[in-house]
Amino acid sequence: MSAESTRAANICRGLAIDAVQKANSGHPGMPMGMADVATVLWSRFVKYDPADPRWADRDRVVLSGGHGSSLLYSMMFLMGQGEAGHPHLSPMTLEDLRQFRQWGSRTPGHPELGEAPGVECTTGPLGQGIAMAVGMAIAEAHLRATFGADLVDHRTYVMCGDGDLMEGISTEAASLAGHLGLSRLTLMYDDNGITIDGSTDLAFTEDTTRKFEALGWHVIEIDGHNHAAIGAALATAQEELERPTLIRCRTTIGFGSPNKAGKSAAHGAPLGPDEVRLTKLSLGLDPEAAFQTDDAAFNLYRRNDADRTSFRHAWNARLAASPQRAALEAALAGVINTSGIAWPAYASGSKLATRKASQAAIQAIAAAVPAFMGGSADLAESNLTHIKGAPEFQRGKYEGRNIAFGIREHAMAAISNGLSLHGGVRPYCATFLIFHDYHRPSFRLSALMGQPVVYVYTHDSVWVGEDGPTHQPTETLASIRLVPNSWLIRPADAAEANVAWAMALERTDGPVALAFTRQDLVTIDRSVHPSAESIRDGGYVVLEDSAAKVTFVATGSEVGLALEAAKVLAAEGLGARVVNLACTAIFDAKPAAYRRAVLGSLPRVSVEAGATVGWERYVGDGGRSIGIDRFGASAPGKVVSENLGLNVANLVAVAKLAIG
Amino acid sequence: MSAESTRAANICRGLAIDAVQKANSGHPGMPMGMADVATVLWSRFVKYDPADPRWADRDRVVLSGGHGSSLLYSMMFLMGQGEAGHPHLSPMTLEDLRQFRQWGSRTPGHPELGEAPGVECTTGPLGQGIAMAVGMAIAEAHLRATFGADLVDHRTYVMCGDGDLMEGISTEAASLAGHLGLSRLTLMYDDNGITIDGSTDLAFTEDTTRKFEALGWHVIEIDGHNHAAIGAALATAQEELERPTLIRCRTTIGFGSPNKAGKSAAHGAPLGPDEVRLTKLSLGLDPEAAFQTDDAAFNLYRRNDADRTSFRHAWNARLAASPQRAALEAALAGVINTSGIAWPAYASGSKLATRKASQAAIQAIAAAVPAFMGGSADLAESNLTHIKGAPEFQRGKYEGRNIAFGIREHAMAAISNGLSLHGGVRPYCATFLIFHDYHRPSFRLSALMGQPVVYVYTHDSVWVGEDGPTHQPTETLASIRLVPNSWLIRPADAAEANVAWAMALERTDGPVALAFTRQDLVTIDRSVHPSAESIRDGGYVVLEDSAAKVTFVATGSEVGLALEAAKVLAAEGLGARVVNLACTAIFDAKPAAYRRAVLGSLPRVSVEAGATVGWERYVGDGGRSIGIDRFGASAPGKVVSENLGLNVANLVAVAKLAIG
Repeated sequence: MSAESTRAANICRGLAIDAVQKANSGHPGMPMGMADVATVLWSRFVKYDPADPRWADRDRVVLSGGHGSSLLYSMMFLMGQGEAGHPHLSPMTLEDLRQFRQWGSRTPGHPELGEAPGVECTTGPLGQGIAMAVGMAIAEAHLRATFGADLVDHRTYVMCGDGDLMEGISTEAASLAGHLGLSRLTLMYDDNGITIDGSTDLAFTEDTTRKFEALGWHVIEIDGHNHAAIGAALATAQEELERPTLIRCRTTIGFGSPNKAGKSAAHGAPLGPDEVRLTKLSLGLDPEAAFQTDDAAFNLYRRNDADRTSFRHAWNARLAASPQRAALEAALAGVINTSGIAWPAYASGSKLATRKASQAAIQAIAAAVPAFMGGSADLAESNLTHIKGAPEFQRGKYEGRNIAFGIREHAMAAISNGLSLHGGVRPYCATFLIFHDYHRPSFRLSALMGQPVVYVYTHDSVWVGEDGPTHQPTETLASIRLVPNSWLIRPADAAEANVAWAMALERTDGPVALAFTRQDLVTIDRSVHPSAESIRDGGYVVLEDSAAKVTFVATGSEVGLALEAAKVLAAEGLGARVVNLACTAIFDAKPAAYRRAVLGSLPRVSVEAGATVGWERYVGDGGRSIGIDRFGASAPGKVVSENLGLNVANLVAVAKLAIG
Repeated sequence: MSAESTRAANICRGLAIDAVQKANSGHPGMPMGMADVATVLWSRFVKYDPADPRWADRDRVVLSGGHGSSLLYSMMFLMGQGEAGHPHLSPMTLEDLRQFRQWGSRTPGHPELGEAPGVECTTGPLGQGIAMAVGMAIAEAHLRATFGADLVDHRTYVMCGDGDLMEGISTEAASLAGHLGLSRLTLMYDDNGITIDGSTDLAFTEDTTRKFEALGWHVIEIDGHNHAAIGAALATAQEELERPTLIRCRTTIGFGSPNKAGKSAAHGAPLGPDEVRLTKLSLGLDPEAAFQTDDAAFNLYRRNDADRTSFRHAWNARLAASPQRAALEAALAGVINTSGIAWPAYASGSKLATRKASQAAIQAIAAAVPAFMGGSADLAESNLTHIKGAPEFQRGKYEGRNIAFGIREHAMAAISNGLSLHGGVRPYCATFLIFHDYHRPSFRLSALMGQPVVYVYTHDSVWVGEDGPTHQPTETLASIRLVPNSWLIRPADAAEANVAWAMALERTDGPVALAFTRQDLVTIDRSVHPSAESIRDGGYVVLEDSAAKVTFVATGSEVGLALEAAKVLAAEGLGARVVNLACTAIFDAKPAAYRRAVLGSLPRVSVEAGATVGWERYVGDGGRSIGIDRFGASAPGKVVSENLGLNVANLVAVAKLAIG
C-alpha cells in the first residue's frame, strides 16, 4: 500500500517534470517536493467525485503556490477528474500536459479558474490562495450552520510554500481563521527551506510553528515524504474540532533529482534533459519514457471512484428530500432576482450621503437575499455595511451574516473571493476607497477569475476631509477603472445608489466596486430628470437642454455640482447639458451611436474629484477636465473640495473657456 | 518625580483633547491612552536636541497609528522642539494646536512629513509606520557598522495600535526585523482592546506576545499607565543586544474620560464639550481652561535641554575630527553626482534585456556611490539587482549592502521609505512589475512624502510569457503613472537604461519606478538616432522623417517595434516618425511648445504593451492606440505579445488607418 502510494507519487513527479521540460519553462521543485503529500491527500482524503468536479459538497483543494501547477495538472490527469462534454472542464489528457504553458492550452503556467478541472481558484500571486481558502472555509461553515451537515459537510485544504507564508496577507487570513476557529481548514506547508534566492535562512527564520500556535492554530510537524505520517496528520486534522490545522511538511525541494534536490536551482527552471533522465532513474521510472503512466497509479487514485460517485448520489438524494432544497439550490445558483428587493425610496430634494443610501439598500437586500453576507475591515460604523438584526459571524455562530474582518483589507478581499468561489453566498466587503490600494492584488484576481464580489468603497473623494491626503483618494477611481473586467459605479444620489447595488447583485461574471460619498448629496428630482435606472447604461444625459452650449460629463457627487453650474450658465443664457457617467466600463461597451448621442457634439467638460487622466476619452481634443491631479489636504471636506476647484464658479468658468 | 511625570502626561492629554474638540474632528482615544508612554519616552529616553529636530544622530520616534497625531503635536509643543526660522519646522505653538486639521495648518489630521518638527514620516495608513521604522533601524545599523558608533548611535521607537498589528505589512516587517536582530528598534504597542467597531475580541484574538516571540522579538508586558513600569521597560529594551523589543502596554483608550474611557466611542470622535470638562476634572486640570499648560510640564520635558544640546555639540565635534567626516556628510546630503559613475557602454545593434542593462548599471553605481543599497523581494536572480562582491546585509553583518527582503513586497517598499527617510543611504527595491500592486500603498507614501526611493520593476509586460496573466502586467504601467509626484521611466534600450538610472539617482523629491524588460531589446544606433540622454526630456523624437505621414508614440520595448514598423512604412512610401515617451510625468511638465514639437501634427498612433486608457492625451481625437486592454495569457512571451497585436504588421495596418 505504501509502496503503491510512493510509486503513484513518483509517476506524478515524472509527469510534472516532463511537462516543465517540454515547455522548457516552469517550476519542477515544488511538484517534486509535494507529490507525496498530494498523493496521500487526493487518494485517501479529499471528498470529490471525479465525474463532477463542480459538485457543491466536494472538498476544496487550493494550490496556493500556483507555480507548482504541473503538480495539480498531473494529479487531475491521474485521477481522471473532469466533466465530460464541458468545454473547459473535460478530463485532463496527456496532450493537455504536453501543452503546458502554451497559447490556448488548458494548462497555463499558473492554475487559472475555469480552464481545467480541480482548479478551485487562480493562484500565483503568493498568499492569495491561503486567504481564498479561508473564505471557502467560512462559506462552508456558514452554509453548514444554515442548511445542516446533511447537505453541507466538506473541508478545505491548501498547499502552500514559504513564499505564501512570508506574504502579509497570509498572516492576516491565518489570524482571522484562528480567531474564527475554522477547524475544517487544513494548511499543508511545503517546508523545504529553499526560495528563489537561496536558503530561507536569508530572510525567513521565524518560528512558524509557534507563530501559528499564537494565531490559534493546531500545528503538526511531519516528514513530508513519509506517506504514513502524512496520512496520520491528515486524519488528526479531521478530528480537530476547535482550530484550523497547519501540517508542517518537511520536504526536499526537487525530491528525486540527484543533482538539484534541496537546491534553489530546482525551484523555477526545467531540470534539463540529462537531469530528467537521472531523476527518473532515481525514482524508479523509465528514464527514456516521457509522460510515463501506469495502471497502478491510476488504480490508486481512482480506486474509490465508485464510492465517490455513490457518495455524491446519496447527497443528491438527501438534497432532493430536503425541505431546504429550493433554498440551497437558489443560494448555489448565485443568480439574484433584484426585483424582489424592497428598495428604499427617496424624496427629490432630500439630502443623503450615498453611503447612507447604501446602508439602507444593504438592509433591503439582506431581507430578500439570504445568501447575502459580508462586512468591513473594522470600518462598519463608517462604511455603514452592517446588516442590522443579523447575527455576527463568529466562532460557534456560523449562521451569522456580518463578518468582522478586522483591519485586514488585503485578506478581506481575498476571503471574499473565496466566499464567491465556494458558492452559496454572495459576498460584499467594505473599506474606505483609498484603501483599495491595500487589496488591489485581490481585486485584480476577482476580475481575472470573474468573481462577482461587491466592493463597497465609501469616503470616495477629498470630501473625506480632515483625515487628509493619506485618507483621501484622488487617483483611486482612475486606477480601479484600469482593471479589466471590473466595474466601478459611482452613483450621483441615493436613488442611483439603489440601482448601483442592483447592478452589482445582478452581475455574475466580475467584481463591482461601488463608490459612495461620505457627504450628503441632493436627491435628484426624477420628475424632471430621467430615471435613476438610467445608470444601467453606464452613462446617460441627466440634463438635456436644446439651447446648451456645453456638456458637463460628471460622476457621483460631481453630477450635482454640474447641475448647479448648469443652472448658473442657463441664467446667463449659456445652457449646459449634463451627462452622468456613473460606470465607464458599461458605457464603453455600448454601441458607438449611443455613446455619441450621450456625449453630444458640444464642447465638453469632465468633472470628477479625482485624476483627470483618461477623461480625454470622453471630452475629446476640444474638451477640458476639472479634477484633482495632486494629493489632497487635511481640512473640512467642503473646504478641500472647493479649494481644489470643485466649486460652481470654477465649473462655470471652465465651461466658458470650453465654449470659447 | 512620578507625580510630576503624571501631571505632564495629563497636560498633554488636555492639549490633545482640546485640539480634537476645537477641530470637532479627530481621534482623542489613542492620545489619552498613550500619553503616559509618550511622556516617559520623550522626557527620559529619546535622544534629540529640541533646537535641531533634524540632527542626524537623533533617535527616531514614529507614530505608526497616525490618527493619534494630536498626541505627537502636543508633545512637540511641550518639548519646544523646532528649528527657529524654518518655514515648516519652527517650534509648534498653541496656535498650531488650535489650527488642528484646518486648511493650510501645520497640524493636519495625520502627521505629514515636513509640516511639523518631530514628524519622522507621514503615517495614517496602518502598518506603514512599523515597516518604515524597520527601515530606519536598518539604516542606523548599516551606518553604524560603516562609520562607527562614535558617529552613529541612535535608536528607533514606534508607537502603534491594534490596527497596525492586524495589517499584514506589520508582520512582514516584524518578521524581517526579528530575523535581522535589529535590537535598537523598540515597538510600543497601545494594547487597549478597542477598535473602531468595538472590542478587539470581534476579530483580533491572537496571542501577540507569543507571535512576536516566534518572530524573534523580545516581549515585555506592562501597565501602560504606570510611569515606573514604562521607564523600566524602556531601560530593559536598551540593554537588549540581540532582538528588537515589543513593549506591550496595557492601556485604557480615552484614559481619564469618566464616560468614554475603555470604549470605542473614545476612538475617533471628539469627546464633546461636557465630557471634555469632566475629563479635565478627573485629570486634575482646570475644566474651563482650553489648551492649558504649566511650567511644571515644560520643565519636565525640557529639563535636559542643555544636556541635549551639549550632546549634539559633542557629536559635532567628533564628526569634525573624524577622518570619515566627508564620507558621512556626503551620504547624509543625499545628492548623488552621477557624472562620477562609469556607466557601461553598448554597441549599437547588440541585443540585451534592459533588466540586464540595469544589472550592469547597478554594479557601476554601487562602485561609485557608497550610500547605494537595496535588494529584491526574493527575485534577485530575476530582477538582477544584486550588488556583486558586496556583502549581504544580515544579522551581525550590517555593513552589507544587499538586503534580502524575503517575499514581502509591501514591507520592502515601506522599509525602503524608512531607509530614505533616515538618510545616509540611497535605497532601491525590486520585484516584478505586476507586484507593484502588492506595495502600492507604500509607493503612494513615497510620492506623498517626496522620498526618492528607486523601484526596480522588471518583467514589464506580457513578455513575462509562460507565467501567464497573474504575472503579466497590463494595466500596471498606467496605474503607476496615476500616482502624483511619481516618475515612471520605461527605457527603450540598454543605453537608455543607464540614463534612466541616472535620472532616478539625481531625483531628490519623489520616487522613481524603472520598468525593465525580461526580453532582449536591440540597442538603438545613436549615430543615426538622437542620444539616449534625450529621455531626460521625458519624450523625444527618436526617428524624424520629413516625409512622414504618421507618428508612432511608444515606450520601452515598443519603441523598437515602432522603429521596425517605420521601416516597413518607409519602404511603402509612407514614412513614419517615432516618439519615445519614456517618462510621461516629465514630458507633461515640459513647455507646451516642446510637447507640440515632439508629438507633431501628423496623425498619431500610440504603442505600449499595456492599457490604452490615458493615451488619448498624446494621440488626440484623430489618433489611435495599440495596447492591451485585457489580461494576458500563458505562452512564450513573443507569442503572447504578437497574438495581442504587438507586431509589426498590426502597427503598419493601424498606422495606415490613422493616415486614412
